[in-house]
Amino acid sequence: MKLVVVGAAGRMGQTLIRVIKETEGVMLHAAIERAGSDKLGADAGELAGAGHLGVPITEDVLAGFLHADGVIDFTSPAATNEFAALAAQARIVHVIGTTGCGPEDEAKIAAASRHARIVKSGNMSLGVNLLSVLVQQAAKALEAAGWDIEVLEMHHKHKVDAPSGTALLLGAAAARGRGINLAENSVRVRDGHTGAREAGSIGFATLRGGSVIGEHSVLFASEGEIVTLSHSAGDRSLFARGAVKAALWARDKKPGLYSMLDVLGLSANP
Amino acid sequence: MKLVVVGAAGRMGQTLIRVIKETEGVMLHAAIERAGSDKLGADAGELAGAGHLGVPITEDVLAGFLHADGVIDFTSPAATNEFAALAAQARIVHVIGTTGCGPEDEAKIAAASRHARIVKSGNMSLGVNLLSVLVQQAAKALEAAGWDIEVLEMHHKHKVDAPSGTALLLGAAAARGRGINLAENSVRVRDGHTGAREAGSIGFATLRGGSVIGEHSVLFASEGEIVTLSHSAGDRSLFARGAVKAALWARDKKPGLYSMLDVLGLSANP
Amino acid sequence: MKLVVVGAAGRMGQTLIRVIKETEGVMLHAAIERAGSDKLGADAGELAGAGHLGVPITEDVLAGFLHADGVIDFTSPAATNEFAALAAQARIVHVIGTTGCGPEDEAKIAAASRHARIVKSGNMSLGVNLLSVLVQQAAKALEAAGWDIEVLEMHHKHKVDAPSGTALLLGAAAARGRGINLAENSVRVRDGHTGAREAGSIGFATLRGGSVIGEHSVLFASEGEIVTLSHSAGDRSLFARGAVKAALWARDKKPGLYSMLDVLGLSANP
Amino acid sequence: MKLVVVGAAGRMGQTLIRVIKETEGVMLHAAIERAGSDKLGADAGELAGAGHLGVPITEDVLAGFLHADGVIDFTSPAATNEFAALAAQARIVHVIGTTGCGPEDEAKIAAASRHARIVKSGNMSLGVNLLSVLVQQAAKALEAAGWDIEVLEMHHKHKVDAPSGTALLLGAAAARGRGINLAENSVRVRDGHTGAREAGSIGFATLRGGSVIGEHSVLFASEGEIVTLSHSAGDRSLFARGAVKAALWARDKKPGLYSMLDVLGLSANP
Repeated sequence: MKLVVVGAAGRMGQTLIRVIKETEGVMLHAAIERAGSDKLGADAGELAGAGHLGVPITEDVLAGFLHADGVIDFTSPAATNEFAALAAQARIVHVIGTTGCGPEDEAKIAAASRHARIVKSGNMSLGVNLLSVLVQQAAKALEAAGWDIEVLEMHHKHKVDAPSGTALLLGAAAARGRGINLAENSVRVRDGHTGAREAGSIGFATLRGGSVIGEHSVLFASEGEIVTLSHSAGDRSLFARGAVKAALWARDKKPGLYSMLDVLGLSANP
Repeated sequence: MKLVVVGAAGRMGQTLIRVIKETEGVMLHAAIERAGSDKLGADAGELAGAGHLGVPITEDVLAGFLHADGVIDFTSPAATNEFAALAAQARIVHVIGTTGCGPEDEAKIAAASRHARIVKSGNMSLGVNLLSVLVQQAAKALEAAGWDIEVLEMHHKHKVDAPSGTALLLGAAAARGRGINLAENSVRVRDGHTGAREAGSIGFATLRGGSVIGEHSVLFASEGEIVTLSHSAGDRSLFARGAVKAALWARDKKPGLYSMLDVLGLSANP
Repeated sequence: MKLVVVGAAGRMGQTLIRVIKETEGVMLHAAIERAGSDKLGADAGELAGAGHLGVPITEDVLAGFLHADGVIDFTSPAATNEFAALAAQARIVHVIGTTGCGPEDEAKIAAASRHARIVKSGNMSLGVNLLSVLVQQAAKALEAAGWDIEVLEMHHKHKVDAPSGTALLLGAAAARGRGINLAENSVRVRDGHTGAREAGSIGFATLRGGSVIGEHSVLFASEGEIVTLSHSAGDRSLFARGAVKAALWARDKKPGLYSMLDVLGLSANP
Repeated sequence: MKLVVVGAAGRMGQTLIRVIKETEGVMLHAAIERAGSDKLGADAGELAGAGHLGVPITEDVLAGFLHADGVIDFTSPAATNEFAALAAQARIVHVIGTTGCGPEDEAKIAAASRHARIVKSGNMSLGVNLLSVLVQQAAKALEAAGWDIEVLEMHHKHKVDAPSGTALLLGAAAARGRGINLAENSVRVRDGHTGAREAGSIGFATLRGGSVIGEHSVLFASEGEIVTLSHSAGDRSLFARGAVKAALWARDKKPGLYSMLDVLGLSANP
């Protein structure tokens, strides 16, 4: 399967290129960066520490998508929208790990999926996706009146947004379990006089520091007991391996918008 | 519902008496201690810090069970066997929180349950029982080849056995998820030259100290990621409330051997 | 030593009364509540579950302080200011566990301490005070350029302010170790687009839920490693025992403003 | 500074070679493997993924040590003894990260240090060494009668011994703080009927799984509170960087046996 990596000079792009090189059944077809990057023209493999691959980094998206089978995309919402339209035209698989997409972005991606096979997830790891299933179940089993839900995450000091896409993914799973809307029931800031905790709300707390790749916990706290469901990622290649797995999985599927739960066979609606 | 507490002068017995006093729909009918206890004759309520209840602590089990509706029992395997036979004769509910029962004990309890309504569990809390369901599911979803299962527990310095009954309960849930036998796949000791970890085994580790009521974690560790499912108990009355809930639930059931999963509606086979 | 408890009908006040009853060398002299409380006139011991003590709850502070040796105070900043003035006049020990005091409150308390023996701390436990010493040392040893400091806390759902007084106490210890001002270097909120973490800042994160008495962690995160120093409180009487210990310790000291570090012998400037 | 890496084809050896290449002021002088290794003759840099370095892997220790300034050694006790004698003869710095050395090995290393500059530590990271200082202090401040010490560690599934060298290093720091002998007060196994915890003992618990590089916690548990001091290593190069730092530090020191506490300026006896 011939794969295009967009954002190929970034930290995640380089990890993807190394993983593609090491994975049987896939090869790097093109490596895209935005116009103006000082890495244009460099060999994508050498830049990624994967040895010479003969694939220069380019800004030419159309040429890159030509004759490709799929594109893997951990970029920004604006760029992802553009890639989704082009991937649909090119009829290639689009794996989206981009976070921070708003409702408009989601609508455009959904539109593109009428003609394209898209896999989109806030987290491509098996562990986090399994965790989201367990969180939904726990939230369903534990009454909101007696059990307070909190989501805690920690990431490295370079991360620019909070809470993380994965924290929101887990919060959404909890809200789904409770049959409530996450946005309307989230508490994302606590400082000064907050008043007592509101029953049924879902709280978020964020830590930043060092080189932490990703730690997430969902706590269910009650009178006298706490259940905590956690995930710790020790290696960025985890997400790259998940994305490549998603591309391979989607290759022979019908057009549609899929999640990693589908890829991993964890979906409640198979 | 008229309840008998056996082991009424112990730490758990006293907690049970306080919870029974505070719970609507139940009352303390008798408080049993073993012959020779220096607490015989004392008022069970005063001993437990629940105020005078007019129920003296007695060694007379038969008199205690007479006209009772149920007995709650966190004692020892030998005593529990005896109580199970008597409770079956008296046709009263028997809630068993005793840990450390061997195969012979289990067989006797199962025999008694042909004529009696018995609820038996290594842990009476909602949180731990939910956790055991989630652990079983996670163990099923995560392949043994790539995911190592470890069970960690911590209890107070007075605890005399290891691993805890709850740790074993969680290990059994993991083994069930994998379709393996726990006893044959447990690693309960690691010291000195252990060799590399054997794939498919379930490891146990034990911490003891202070006044910790009960901390349990089940870890699923893989290449690059860890999923951890944990429970923390902050208050011994948690288990007493669960036991009383079990007694009330079992009151109108048919004879049989039930678990807290049944009581809590978490059983996969309703 | 004859002790007055103010806020005697509250959760912490009741715990104090039970601990005073159980501790040798101290006795309950008076139990104060604010005017209008529906508990006025009740026996303080019975209310606290400590048995009849013959000390009715009263709103009369002056009468309560008369012939007393000390007052223990976990109330609110406004009430504490008033008690500090009265305790100084009565020349009795004033142990202050009240949190949320602003600079003006602190100034008034400092003024009162010219004539009174005051022990004030955001946390009365041995563990937290030792932790603050270790945090200060770690912050001094680990360069701000490479090590990011984060303070995480969790408390029960009833708590009305964030971060906790203890979290701020630990943050202040870290700032002291670094020789910086905490208020100028704190990050107390992260939500949405935050940008990358600023080197040298001290972050705070807050969890709320269930009946958690108090969990605190200070993380020092670097490239490739994290040092975490944590405290977990399992029992509110911990703080009450610390407060009583502080009162006994201060009895024969000279007027002044002391901390629990002084009481526990952990102060760097003995 | 010209450095020799012994065990150059192993996981830690390769990490050392990459770190040496990236660190200013040091260069790879020779790369030693044991006779019979199938890697002999390969370029050490290429094997380590650090690019061609022109240093073939060799079994010839004497030639390798000639004209070198230091040797870094994470091998086995037997090999380390041999290298210590040769490094002393060659008058070069010997940095030892080898674990599992017995009393006889330690005696030989001490003998070699009369003529050589040796830095030896169970863990080369700044974080763990700082932690050991804090653990010693906490153990000194908290009375054995009331505070139980437990050491917990987790490592990857390939690790063949338990507890880890770092766990023992931390246990030794705790024992030093208490003024007791670690070996005589350790509890390294708990299984079945253990009886209550013995006051003053130091317990160890071990978890194994996945690819965990190293997690260590020292718990101080008391009636109602727990202080936990922890370290998490996210990257094996942490230890390599510490070893290179140790070599540079020792270059102009007098012969002697030093620890990482000396290198890091954390030693109580400067």
